[in-house]
Formats: sequence, structure tokens, C-alpha cells
Amino acid sequence: MPNQPISGNDLARFSGPQTFMRLPAAETAAGLDVGIIGIPMDIGTSWRSGTRMGPKQLREQSAMIRPYNIQTGAAPFDGLQVADLGDVAINTFSLSDTIRIITRAYDAYLAQDIIPVTLGGDHSLTLPVLRSIAKRHGPVALIHVDAHADVNDTMFGERETHGTFLRRAWEENLVVPDKVFQIGLRGTGYAADDFTEAAGWGFTQHLAPGLWHKSLAPLAAEITAKIGYAKTYITYDIDSLDPAFAPGTGTPEIGGLTTAQAMELIRGLRGLNIVGCDLVEVSPPYDPSGNTALVGANLLFEMLSILPGVPYR
Amino acid sequence: MPNQPISGNDLARFSGPQTFMRLPAAETAAGLDVGIIGIPMDIGTSWRSGTRMGPKQLREQSAMIRPYNIQTGAAPFDGLQVADLGDVAINTFSLSDTIRIITRAYDAYLAQDIIPVTLGGDHSLTLPVLRSIAKRHGPVALIHVDAHADVNDTMFGERETHGTFLRRAWEENLVVPDKVFQIGLRGTGYAADDFTEAAGWGFTQHLAPGLWHKSLAPLAAEITAKIGYAKTYITYDIDSLDPAFAPGTGTPEIGGLTTAQAMELIRGLRGLNIVGCDLVEVSPPYDPSGNTALVGANLLFEMLSILPGVPYR
Amino acid sequence: MPNQPISGNDLARFSGPQTFMRLPAAETAAGLDVGIIGIPMDIGTSWRSGTRMGPKQLREQSAMIRPYNIQTGAAPFDGLQVADLGDVAINTFSLSDTIRIITRAYDAYLAQDIIPVTLGGDHSLTLPVLRSIAKRHGPVALIHVDAHADVNDTMFGERETHGTFLRRAWEENLVVPDKVFQIGLRGTGYAADDFTEAAGWGFTQHLAPGLWHKSLAPLAAEITAKIGYAKTYITYDIDSLDPAFAPGTGTPEIGGLTTAQAMELIRGLRGLNIVGCDLVEVSPPYDPSGNTALVGANLLFEMLSILPGVPYR
Amino acid sequence: MPNQPISGNDLARFSGPQTFMRLPAAETAAGLDVGIIGIPMDIGTSWRSGTRMGPKQLREQSAMIRPYNIQTGAAPFDGLQVADLGDVAINTFSLSDTIRIITRAYDAYLAQDIIPVTLGGDHSLTLPVLRSIAKRHGPVALIHVDAHADVNDTMFGERETHGTFLRRAWEENLVVPDKVFQIGLRGTGYAADDFTEAAGWGFTQHLAPGLWHKSLAPLAAEITAKIGYAKTYITYDIDSLDPAFAPGTGTPEIGGLTTAQAMELIRGLRGLNIVGCDLVEVSPPYDPSGNTALVGANLLFEMLSILPGVPYR
Amino acid sequence: MPNQPISGNDLARFSGPQTFMRLPAAETAAGLDVGIIGIPMDIGTSWRSGTRMGPKQLREQSAMIRPYNIQTGAAPFDGLQVADLGDVAINTFSLSDTIRIITRAYDAYLAQDIIPVTLGGDHSLTLPVLRSIAKRHGPVALIHVDAHADVNDTMFGERETHGTFLRRAWEENLVVPDKVFQIGLRGTGYAADDFTEAAGWGFTQHLAPGLWHKSLAPLAAEITAKIGYAKTYITYDIDSLDPAFAPGTGTPEIGGLTTAQAMELIRGLRGLNIVGCDLVEVSPPYDPSGNTALVGANLLFEMLSILPGVPYR
Amino acid sequence: MPNQPISGNDLARFSGPQTFMRLPAAETAAGLDVGIIGIPMDIGTSWRSGTRMGPKQLREQSAMIRPYNIQTGAAPFDGLQVADLGDVAINTFSLSDTIRIITRAYDAYLAQDIIPVTLGGDHSLTLPVLRSIAKRHGPVALIHVDAHADVNDTMFGERETHGTFLRRAWEENLVVPDKVFQIGLRGTGYAADDFTEAAGWGFTQHLAPGLWHKSLAPLAAEITAKIGYAKTYITYDIDSLDPAFAPGTGTPEIGGLTTAQAMELIRGLRGLNIVGCDLVEVSPPYDPSGNTALVGANLLFEMLSILPGVPYR
Repeated sequence: MPNQPISGNDLARFSGPQTFMRLPAAETAAGLDVGIIGIPMDIGTSWRSGTRMGPKQLREQSAMIRPYNIQTGAAPFDGLQVADLGDVAINTFSLSDTIRIITRAYDAYLAQDIIPVTLGGDHSLTLPVLRSIAKRHGPVALIHVDAHADVNDTMFGERETHGTFLRRAWEENLVVPDKVFQIGLRGTGYAADDFTEAAGWGFTQHLAPGLWHKSLAPLAAEITAKIGYAKTYITYDIDSLDPAFAPGTGTPEIGGLTTAQAMELIRGLRGLNIVGCDLVEVSPPYDPSGNTALVGANLLFEMLSILPGVPYR
Repeated sequence: MPNQPISGNDLARFSGPQTFMRLPAAETAAGLDVGIIGIPMDIGTSWRSGTRMGPKQLREQSAMIRPYNIQTGAAPFDGLQVADLGDVAINTFSLSDTIRIITRAYDAYLAQDIIPVTLGGDHSLTLPVLRSIAKRHGPVALIHVDAHADVNDTMFGERETHGTFLRRAWEENLVVPDKVFQIGLRGTGYAADDFTEAAGWGFTQHLAPGLWHKSLAPLAAEITAKIGYAKTYITYDIDSLDPAFAPGTGTPEIGGLTTAQAMELIRGLRGLNIVGCDLVEVSPPYDPSGNTALVGANLLFEMLSILPGVPYR
Repeated sequence: MPNQPISGNDLARFSGPQTFMRLPAAETAAGLDVGIIGIPMDIGTSWRSGTRMGPKQLREQSAMIRPYNIQTGAAPFDGLQVADLGDVAINTFSLSDTIRIITRAYDAYLAQDIIPVTLGGDHSLTLPVLRSIAKRHGPVALIHVDAHADVNDTMFGERETHGTFLRRAWEENLVVPDKVFQIGLRGTGYAADDFTEAAGWGFTQHLAPGLWHKSLAPLAAEITAKIGYAKTYITYDIDSLDPAFAPGTGTPEIGGLTTAQAMELIRGLRGLNIVGCDLVEVSPPYDPSGNTALVGANLLFEMLSILPGVPYR
Repeated sequence: MPNQPISGNDLARFSGPQTFMRLPAAETAAGLDVGIIGIPMDIGTSWRSGTRMGPKQLREQSAMIRPYNIQTGAAPFDGLQVADLGDVAINTFSLSDTIRIITRAYDAYLAQDIIPVTLGGDHSLTLPVLRSIAKRHGPVALIHVDAHADVNDTMFGERETHGTFLRRAWEENLVVPDKVFQIGLRGTGYAADDFTEAAGWGFTQHLAPGLWHKSLAPLAAEITAKIGYAKTYITYDIDSLDPAFAPGTGTPEIGGLTTAQAMELIRGLRGLNIVGCDLVEVSPPYDPSGNTALVGANLLFEMLSILPGVPYR
Repeated sequence: MPNQPISGNDLARFSGPQTFMRLPAAETAAGLDVGIIGIPMDIGTSWRSGTRMGPKQLREQSAMIRPYNIQTGAAPFDGLQVADLGDVAINTFSLSDTIRIITRAYDAYLAQDIIPVTLGGDHSLTLPVLRSIAKRHGPVALIHVDAHADVNDTMFGERETHGTFLRRAWEENLVVPDKVFQIGLRGTGYAADDFTEAAGWGFTQHLAPGLWHKSLAPLAAEITAKIGYAKTYITYDIDSLDPAFAPGTGTPEIGGLTTAQAMELIRGLRGLNIVGCDLVEVSPPYDPSGNTALVGANLLFEMLSILPGVPYR
Repeated sequence: MPNQPISGNDLARFSGPQTFMRLPAAETAAGLDVGIIGIPMDIGTSWRSGTRMGPKQLREQSAMIRPYNIQTGAAPFDGLQVADLGDVAINTFSLSDTIRIITRAYDAYLAQDIIPVTLGGDHSLTLPVLRSIAKRHGPVALIHVDAHADVNDTMFGERETHGTFLRRAWEENLVVPDKVFQIGLRGTGYAADDFTEAAGWGFTQHLAPGLWHKSLAPLAAEITAKIGYAKTYITYDIDSLDPAFAPGTGTPEIGGLTTAQAMELIRGLRGLNIVGCDLVEVSPPYDPSGNTALVGANLLFEMLSILPGVPYR
């Protein structure tokens, strides 16, 4: 029997170790199918900080989640060996050094053939993770759920920040451009081509206004069909959600997705060959109630529920 | 002329007695049609506590509500004599004793033939209330709006908690199984039959995903038709709502109902023979702004507005 | 080149002057097309206070907004000369005096032929602004987005408060009755004619329940057609939104609009001859996270984006 | 046996009516020795508002207080008939009208010969209360504990605000100048004579720096001796305390008193012929935890404990 | 080399396992000198709840603490083998059952001869811990730092709650009466003998007013001398501190100790033969900033620093 | 007449520009005696972030301060030309680059011969400021009020962070070692020489326990005498204060100074030849009430009040 979360019937939910869903902690990735990894950083953020506390609060709130996805039938812990690998030991005083450290850490984890599920941290972390992913798997399809396109060239002269990660990933061939899907884009910009340039690279963009008032199940089906058998990475920025649903984040934009839509989207991606995923930009100081982290933890569980090898009952 | 709330034109809303809607307080139920009763408890909760402060904050926020339901035409205080009966004097150190105390108190209130409208408190309270209700009225139809099915057998060995109330009610024949409707269920579980067992008893279950993006008026019409003339109790758990709408609760689950849907549902139940209702699980420490309690107070007013005998203008 | 907001690429968003969108401040309205004006008051509120801090927090949160409306193509600062005119120097100890001061200030501003965009402050301020507007432009069409009709006759004997402004405006012929549109009305009242009397004056009222679950683009189109070429004022009360989206306000009512609907509505009003607009009732103490003000600042930007003369790219 | 607070052994503290200390409510002052009266207003404040919610939160937090002052031996409810008279029905849209309403209300209460104990509300209320007091008792000795001298002449042209009350009281001979003691003054000002002018009227001023690090018992003894048998009013502004102890107030000033000093001061005034007292400037939105109101409620209880007629055991 | 906390130079403080001070977790007490144990409960509280989240937040905030007590020279981890034993698996639905569970757990731990250092949880837990302690060590000297005497006989008929623990301990001979020291007592009561009865049993009581404005080092010296070689337990209720220093607690009382005094007191107890200690009543929902828990974690570290066997450098 | 803050009698305090004390903004330092400069950064912090919002909140709260220091007689704006120079345009993605930017900015400002008064931002900023100061003035006497000695050699391999600034300053001869005074040191450490090494360099260290319960006026007098005529810089870390007084900071330590002591200390330094000062480490997300920033703004005003050339009345 693979690792199981501690049951709320054995130990009260407000008790026990602060690992993701109170799963066992593991020192190394050996023997795992899936590794939960925290990257506690906020030095790549441009407006409100605080995401350095994200992994901590995501783990805390994940204690509410039970192991069986009653709405979809997924039982991830019946089919996969999952453990919490703790946090990457970043250098909180240097963004550029931290980005190098992350790739080094993920190279080692991927050598063990795990699917990394990352708890952010700001969105800068996805670039070094994708570097490791591409090293292992080649360029990947990318499902990028976010309020922002994150394709700036530089910010204050820096090339590796939370607003530039996807341009770098594209330049470095970490992603397959015509299998990149950006969902939930909105907000304001500096020029008409803020988004359109990336569309020119082959990215498919779904702006938020086109998604209002409707189910995202059809969109998920369409994306799944287009990606087919390609290896796929999902990067989920919590600010894709409307601030009503996820107030605790650094660069909120109004008019976003609902959590119902987020679940429809992720559930509809079942069957893809997912090689990794992350949930980023939860900023606890801006939601001390923990509800934003609760949303994040649930979306992580939804992503766990569609990984290859998860049985459905 | 029956009791009226103090008007906001006579006394500023932030002023006056802290009874529900600033109605008169009453010592006994004699002469009332409807009694508002607080049960300030949280010792039956399994994750975050704080619902002991619920009745207090519900009353505080209810000061915003005016007596006439302008959207539906209901004028509850024109047809019913309503007063605030204060709080049940629970034993905050013993859940089992508290459950006995509640039944004793409700037996006495029901002897006066009132419709009890209860301000919770955690969901454990619905079991002892239903015991009194069934003693008076026989088994009732039940409309149970909640994120959770609350049909666990035991929790930490205890049979009477906020997660087990409905299994007990079913075992004790307090409800008519094929007239039990559970609305808004979601979240995660331990096994595939967490919900299905109760479906086997005859309960009708409407999981949240089936309700997303649409009006609940048709569902309300369907339920109303099925219940017909049966005596009916409504138990409304605030966590049926999405945490965006009701963040201040103990066991929030994402992907829930909106307040618009909640109002559609309740308004559509007009005409049922309602013999009691409650609003539970508002936890003030997790929403000091009071907005969750404001939602709760409004839903209580919507339930008041559909009680038998309420005139519409 | 007209005034531009300081770019987030030149100066970090958490830095710089606290003007709206970090636009230049201006001492007078001379040479401007649009003036941003704060009216920091809460002495006209009937329940929770705090809107006196509204202009401050709206400006603070507006630092997140970039100059180009990427979802609609509007580039307001390419076509209009906009500056922040600071706050009206109100008398915080006297509502009646403050109302006189506001009209005096707006008379002076309008003498320079600007479109005033006002940051509230409580809704009492719209009356004195409309007095100046009508003096300059004659009676105007009015788009009034609000949870409340604001057509009380008096409150505690006072005729000029946040709940009476529109009856006064109607009595004083500041608006064209059959071109007054009230959108989002809901909540509770004292009598059946709380709303219907104003309908009798010719106002068109769209109660919230009729707007649930759907796009407001058709409604906007309908209103735009009905108004035609008439000069138009938009008064946007943040409490038209559901408290999930805008918790920080003084008299929240459940079952309100979403921010998506708010944006659909405003965007659909493009083409109208708008002569002024305001965003009122943001109460910072009830949302220290600033997210309500972020919503307000974005809606102000959406209104800026549809002013006459704004180019689209 | 006079009125007693509901015991925490009979009804849990988070339960019951929201009167001060859960004392009985009373419709009129007839038969009372002491009346607790709320004045929920904030329209006289110059910086942060919110004190309109003060009486509500003071009453809520007072539920913690038991009837016997174990540190001093005072048993106020054994010797005095005390009840909660509710709130004065102010006009929240007009400060000047509210000030007239307060005097009218207090004239009526004082006709019943009670000692009024007032829950504020902003400090503007002390002027109309003193007018009633002086009408009944003649000019009184005044103990004024505050960070501010409140002797401005006008503010924005208004003569009756929270910063001018004491100059008006002095001009109108409501107080005996050489029996006015101002304690805790600090903060910043506009001119050297901001405080000294009042010293010239005969007021004794104790600035905060002279009180740091020491017991206030000697000061209390000195004041008590100087006042002798004169009728005395105590006005206690919560901002006399350091913001560490009382963060929830409108115009906080650093370097203030501690709660230990506040209790030493009040306890040391025992024996004075007190004819009324108030506790003002608690602003709940700036301390949702309720701790500032808890301080205020306790200081009110300390003042109750030294009223004439209180037995000590 | 014994267990060491993870250094903030090796892993950023906002990272890593959520054990106390990021010490290693241990499954059993075997081989330990000191075991850190959480008891996450709040069902024994009478006013505000929330202490069930106490152990979690104490551990989170303890990440700030470095291993060397620079102010006193204590280096607890150089001399003692310390680990975090996690939480006792309480029954959150039954206070009486939980009390039995705690004793059972501590009996097992004490069989391994460790010094238990307990993170509360409400003060009810000290009774079952003392039962285990007395079973192992006989009646102990007790240093009880608290705002309340906790010597009620019953509360709502219950004999084992957070307000009765010490009467039970005295009745059951768990403590040596003339070596019981109660420090910081204050607040209000029901009768003159609320405290004095316990004084009659031999307890030494230091009320807060006698401690204001002075160092507690002399008091600590006096207590240490009186206790001599007796085995000693310290129970530290965070509400002994003034709410300015520890706002996040369930039954705050004004006029309490400062953290400086708390440290003077604990440091002065060095040399005593301490066999266990606890820190109780931290209620996170009432201080989401975590500062109260930071105080608690530091006081726990101060207690660790005076345990027998700690070297000083 | 030099620049004056906008008076609260002319414009309500919650209104107007968000400069320090509502002083005029200035583009350059030309003609100024004193320049207020914000450095909005938090990328040098090791635990909680958020100080990037510090300058914004310090300016907001400074609106409460009036121009005359009534407790000391200082009238800084009568003798000095002061303006707000806005913020340094840092690179929020690179700490090392930001440190270079700061020195460049201060070199330019100091070329105009002003005294810079800096609003932080994290304590990393003091190193680049001191580099500019020393370039202009030579090595300076330093008054360093802080909970931490900030003399680490490296943190995560970085040499320029908020915990290392003073070692670098010492190595680079920016300070005169025997005229460096560290006040308020406390907290925990890694080794006995964490503090003592710096004592060996000639620094004078006053640990917090030696300062408890007493006035700091004598200490200030002693320091003033020792420094004599030397040019002096004051760096004031808000975490020198106890978290009760300044909860909103990144690395709080219990047992700190009071605001009364802080004011005694600064007032006692009058007469020194101060060439610059800063107030750092206010972290707004951890105190949304703004009270910590209010403390910081007042301490900045106290430092302004003792600058050379300030007249006393």
C-alpha cells in the first residue's frame, strides 16, 4: 500500500506534521512516483511580496483535504507513491542564485524519475523547473493558467523574474510553442502587442472575458485533444482566479476565473501525459484566514488527481 | 400589529438592542408564531472552531436588514408574531450534555407551537433540534444545504458531532428518507460510498458540480413538488456557499454555491409547510468583517419570508 | 504627448507619488480633458463608516494598473490629457457644509470644461456633483449602478445623505427621468413602493435577481441605445457588486453583481457622451487588504476607457 | 437585591443580551442609581472614524467582566442599582443636531437623579453631557484623561467637535477651572501655547513624559486631595493609553499610559463625589480583536467601582 | 552531539519542517532528555476558543529562535537531547475523554524519563499532565503564572476545565500546597474568597498590581529559595501577560505582566529541579500576525534554557 | 518661511498628498537642508517580508503629526528647509544592484549638502547610505538602535544583507568603532561571540535587559557626551521596540524597548552633529492598522526635531 495521508479520523485535522495533506516526509525522491516540493520565495515579485510563506500555508490548509476525490472518483494515493520532499534551500538574498539552485535541485529529483508537484513561491520558479523538465523530457506542452502572460523581456533590466519566465522558456526551447495554452489572461498592459507577440509564437491565448459565465469543460476537452500524447507541464498561478476567490496573492486582477471553472479545467485535462505541475503566487500575509491557500491546496489535489497512473473508482 | 423590527429611520442601525433584526426580545414562546433562538456552540467542530460567537455576530449583522423583502414582496412581520428568545444555556464543556440541553429547551418551545428559527453554532445542534421537531410533528422532510453530507457514523468514537447528525436523524426516524434533499455536496472523502450510502437510504443528493453556472429556481421547484404537503425542516450550513461568499466558517470547501443561488433556492421553496429551520457554522473569528454573518442573517430573513402565513404584497 | 502614468518598468509599483495611477498631480484643471478628484468623506453614511479613507486607498491600489486596456484596446492616455487634482477640502464635521463646498469646487472645475472623475467618499457626494454638472450641461442621463435606489425622502430628518441623493436630483431636475437607469438594486426595504415610486418617475430599474448568471453586455447595449446622444453621468456605487467581490463597503447587500458583469456593463457603454463619473462607497477599514479598492480603481479605469475621445488600438 | 450581571456560571459569556456586563436593560432611569448609556457616534472625529461602533463593542467585551473587583474589594452591584439604558437616538448625519439631542436626553435622565456612565462614541459627546451635568449640579471638577487637550477654538470653522469640547465647557462655565486635571497629554501641535493657554485658565496639566515609568497612585492622591468635596466628572479618552494597549482608536499618539497606570489612577480617585463619567474614542474597525474595547470596558468597571455608595469587602 | 535545530544559515527561516525550533521529530521518547509535545485543544475554554491551533502556530513562530540564549549564556541543545514528539491524539468532541487520553500519553512518555515541555492548548491540559507527573515524581512544587487562579470548583457542573484545574490538582495531592506560587493574578471575580480560599490552602499568591513597574528578578529569587530542591513544574498561561504583549488569547485581562518581566521571572528560576513545564492558551485566530505565538515560543525557549543539565557559556 | 506641512486645519488629515507629513515634494535636493527619502525594499530580509510597503505607510501615517513638538519645544520646520524627495528607484529583483543604486542616489543628494532622512525598507539599505555618508563626511559616529547586532559576516553566502550591514560598515571604515553605540540588542544567537566580537572592535553595546524598567535619558546623555562633536548617523530599526509597540516588522524579538524609552533616547541626543538618519524595517502587511508605521513616523519626527539648526520655543 503506498503512502497515505494521516486520516482526520485518526488525528484531528489541526494536529500532526505540516507536510502536504499530512503525507509522510521523504528525504530523497528514491522510490517515489510523485514528489511534493516547496519553493518558498518572493524575491521575484513586482508588487506585493509574501509568497515566501506560500508553501507553509499551502501545507497547513491541505490538512482539510481527504484522500478520495469524491466528485470525480479519483483515488491518487491508491495508485501512486507520493511523499513530501520538503523545501528547496534557496538563497533568499539573490534571485539569480536561487534560480540556479532550483534547477540543480530539480535535476537531482528528476534523475529519480518522479513527477514534481511544486508549491510556490512566486512565478519566477517555473523557469528553472522547466529547464530541468526539458533536460529530462525535451520541450513540453504547457498549460499556463494565469492573469498575466509573463512574456516580458526584462523587468528593471532583469531577465529572470515572475513576469518574464515564459519568454525565456520559449527562447530556450523548453516548451513546444503550438502546444502552449494560456488561460485566464486579463488585466492591463503597456502596448497592444503585450499579448499578441506571444500569439505570434504559436501560443493559444484564452482571455478571461471569453470565459466568463461558462463552463471550462469544453475548453479543457479542446486543449486535451490538441496536446494529444505530448508530455505536458501545468503551471497554475493562483491569480488566474478572481480576487474574490483568491484574495491572498501579489498581483491580483479583477474579472478572473471562479474555483468552479478552475476545477472544470483541471478535471478536463485528465488523460494528458503530465510530467510536472506547480501552483504559485499564494501570498499568506494578504489572506491570513488561509482561504486562498485552501483554494491552492485543493487545486494541487485536483492536479494530483489527474496524474498518469491515478485509479478512478 | 405584530412585533416589528426597530426601523433604521428611528434608530441608527449601529445602535439598539442586539436581537435578531432588532426585534423585541421575549422571555417565553407564549403567543409567538416564530421564535428566533441562538445556540452558541463550537465544541462539535472538527477543524476551525469559533462558531460559539456565531449567534452574536448574526444578530449584529442582521441590523442591516429592513422588514420588507423587496425582491419577493414578502412582509413576514405583517403576518407573523416573531420575537428573539435569546440563547439556549448550553454547557460549553460537554458536547453530549449540550445536546441533551438543546432538546429539553426545544421541547419546551415547541409546546407553545412556534416555528423555531435557529442561529448556530455548529451543525451538531441540528440533531437535538430535529429530535424535538419529530417528537412534535413526526418525521419531517428535510432540505439540507451543505458542502458535506454529515452522515459519518462516528468521529473519534463520538456519535453526535457536526459530521454525524444526519445519520443519527435517519437512524432515529426523525426524517422521511425519500423527502431528504442534500444540496451543494462536494469536497473530498475517504471512500466512494461516503455519499452513496445515504443515497441508498432514499436521500436525493445534488452535488455542487451539477449546480455550477445555473439558476437553482428549477431545483427548488422540483423539490417543492416532491415534498408536497409534508412538514419540512430546512437546515442551512453556511459552508454550502463558496468561501468567496462565506469565508468565515470552520470547514470551507471550494467550488460552492453563490448567494444568488442560495436565494433562488430558498425563494423557490415558498409554499412548503415549514416547521423549523436553522443557519449554522458561521465562525466569526475567521471573518471579523462580519460579511459572512451578513450573508447568514440575510438567508435567515429569506427563510423567514417563506414561512407559512407570511403575506406577500 | 499627454500625461502618462509612471511606468512600472521605470519605478516599482510600490513606489512613487500616490496619485491615481501615478499620473501627474495638477493644481488646476486648466488644460485638462479629465480631472481625477477625491472627495474623502463618510459623514453621509448610515451604517459602517470609513469611506473617508476611500480616495487614499483607491489611489494606492491604482498603482497596479497599466495605461493600456488590453482587453478592449482602449488607450485613454493617448487621447486625453488627464491629471490628478487632489482632494476637495471638505468640512468633515458638517455634511451640509460639505455638500455646499463640493458644488463650489466642481463649479470651478467645470468652468475649465473638464470631465470630472470622482473618487469617493460616500454617495452623498453625487448630489452636489450633479448640481454642478447640471448647471454646466443641463439635466443629464444617469447610469446609476448600486444595490440601493437612494431615493429616500429624508433620513433622520436630513434631506441630503447617501440614501437620498437621487430623489433630490430628480426634484431639482438634475437628471432626465426617462434616461435614468438603476442597475443592481436589491436588499430589503420598508414598503412595496420603496423602488416603485421612482419607477413612476420614469426611471428604469434592473433589480439584481434579473441579472444573475448572465452577461450584462446586452443590457449595456440597450441602455446605450436608449440614451443616444444625451449627455450622461455614471455613478458607480461599489456596493452594486456582491460583497464577495467588494467586501470593503458600508452597506453591503448579498446577491450582487460580479466584477465581470461590471466590466461588461461599463465596456458596453462606450460611445455615450459621458460628462462625468464617480466611484463611491469604498470603505478601507472593512478591507485592509486593499482588494475592494483595487476593484474600484479598475472600474474607474474602465470608465476612463470609454470617455469621449479615447482612441482604441 | 439590586440588579446583577448575568453570571458566567449561569450562561456562557459568549451568550446572552448585549447590555453592559449583561446587566438588565431598562426603559427609563426611574429607580436607578447608575445608568449605562451608549452614544454611538463618529461624526465628530478628525482622522480615523469608526467610533460609532464603540458602544456595541464595549458591551460585547464587557461580558468578560465579573461583578466583584477582586483587586480592590469593590462590589458595585451590591450597593447601587445599575441598568443599561441603551443608546441615545442620535442623528448620524448632523453633528450639531446630535449635540442638541444628547443634552435633551441627558437632561431627562438627570431629572431621575442618576449617575450617567457613558459609552462613546467620539469625544464630542462630552460637551453636551457636561451641559446637562452643569445644569443639574453646577460647574464640576473635571478629570480629563487624554492624549489631547481638546481645547481648540474651532476645527474647519466648527465650534463643537471632538477637539474643542473642553474650551467650550470652560467658556460656558461647565467646569471649575482650578479643579480641571488633564492627564496624559502628549502628541504634537501647532504652537507653543496649544497647551499653555489652558494652563493659564487654571487647568492642571500632566504631560505623558512626566508620568513614564511610574505609578500614578501618588498623582491620584494629589488630585483627590485638591478636588475635595466638589462634584466631579471623569472623562476618559481611550487614546490616553499607548496604542500598544489601545490600538483601536481614531487619533492614536505614541508614548502613552499603560493600563496599569490607568487602573492606579482610577482606583486612587475613590472617595470623590463623582456625578458622571464617560469612556470615549474606542474605534472597533481599527481593532477587530476587541481588545481595545476590553480595555475600555474594564476601565468603565473601575470607574463604576469608585462611585459614591459602592461597598468594599 | 545532541539534536540541533536547523540553522537559519542553512535553510531560510520560512522553510523546513514545522517542528518546535525546527528540531528533529521523534516517534518515541526513548533516548531523549526533553520531549516537546503539542496538545491541540480548545474545548475546555469558557470565552473565546481557538487554542486548538496553538501548537501549530507556536511551532511556526519558533522558527525565529536561534539555539543560543545570548542574554543568559544558556545553550540548551549542547547539554540535552531534545526532540519534537508531535501532538497528542485527542478526542476533540469530548473534554473528559481528552483528559484521560492526555494522562495515558504522558504516563508513557514519562516512563522514558523525559522532561515534557508542552505546547497548549487550553489550560485544562495541565491537570492530566500533573497527574502523570505526580505518578512519576510525587507531589510537586508548582509555579503557576496566570491572570486567573483556576481554582473554581465546577464550571457548568464540570469538574475538569480550564478554570478548575488547580483545585483538582490540590484535591488530588498532585502539588505541594506551600510550594505553589501563583503569579500575575488579577481580573474580576464573584466573591472575596475567589482567591483567598486557595491562599488558605498554603498557596502563595502574587497579584499583578503588586508587580507593576518593577523587575521580577527578586520575586524569582525568593521563590527559588523557598522551593529549594523540590521537584518543580512550571505552568505558564500566556494570559498572565498583558494583552498588549499577548493579544491572541481566550480570556485576556488588562493590567498584566510585560515580556521583560516574564523573562526575568523564568531566568531567575534557574537551578530549580524542573520536571516539566507548559505554555498554554495561545489562540491564533485572535492574533493572526503570530506575535502572541512568538512570545509563547520564546518563553518556552526560556524555560528550556533553565532545565537541569543545560550548560551556560 | 521654509516649507511647512499642510495643516490639519486647512485640509483634513485623511486627505492631501502622500508625502511625509504632507510636506511639499521636491524633484531635487537643491536648496534643501533636509531631504526625506524613501527606499521601498524588502529583498534583504530573512524572515517575513513586506518592508517594501514601508515608505508608503510611514508617509500615510505621518499625516497625523503636527509641525510643533509640544513635548520638547522643537519647531523643525521653522529652522530647516525640508521636502520629500520621493523614493529611490531600486531594482526590486536584485539586492546587489539595489545597493549600488542607493549609493549612487545618495552621492547625488549629498552633493547638495542635505541631511538625508530615510524611510525604509529593510536594514540592508543603511550600508549603501553609510557609504555615501562616509564619502562626504568621513567615518561617522553611529547610534544603532536595534534588536539585532547586524554584524554577521555572510548570510547564505551574501555579504550585503539586512543582517550584515554593520560588519561591512566597520570593515570599510565607514564608522568610528569607539563611537558606535548599539542599543536594544537581544534575541537569540548561534554562539557566545555573536555580539562580543563587535564589542572587541570598540562598539559599545547596551543589551535590552539592562534597559528594562528605566528611563533612557541617562544613557542618551552618556552617549552624547562620548560622541562629542563627531559627525553622527542614527539608524533606527523599528524592531528595537517591543512587538507590543511595533508589531509590524519582519524579525520581531520580545523584551524590547517602549516608545517612551525611544523618545527619551532620541530627545537626549539633541546637540549632536547629526548628518543623517533612517528608520527601517516597518512591514505593513504585518500591521494593517498602521500603528507600527505611526510609531515609525513619530520617531522620524523626533529625529527631525534634534537635527542641527532646529529652533526650540
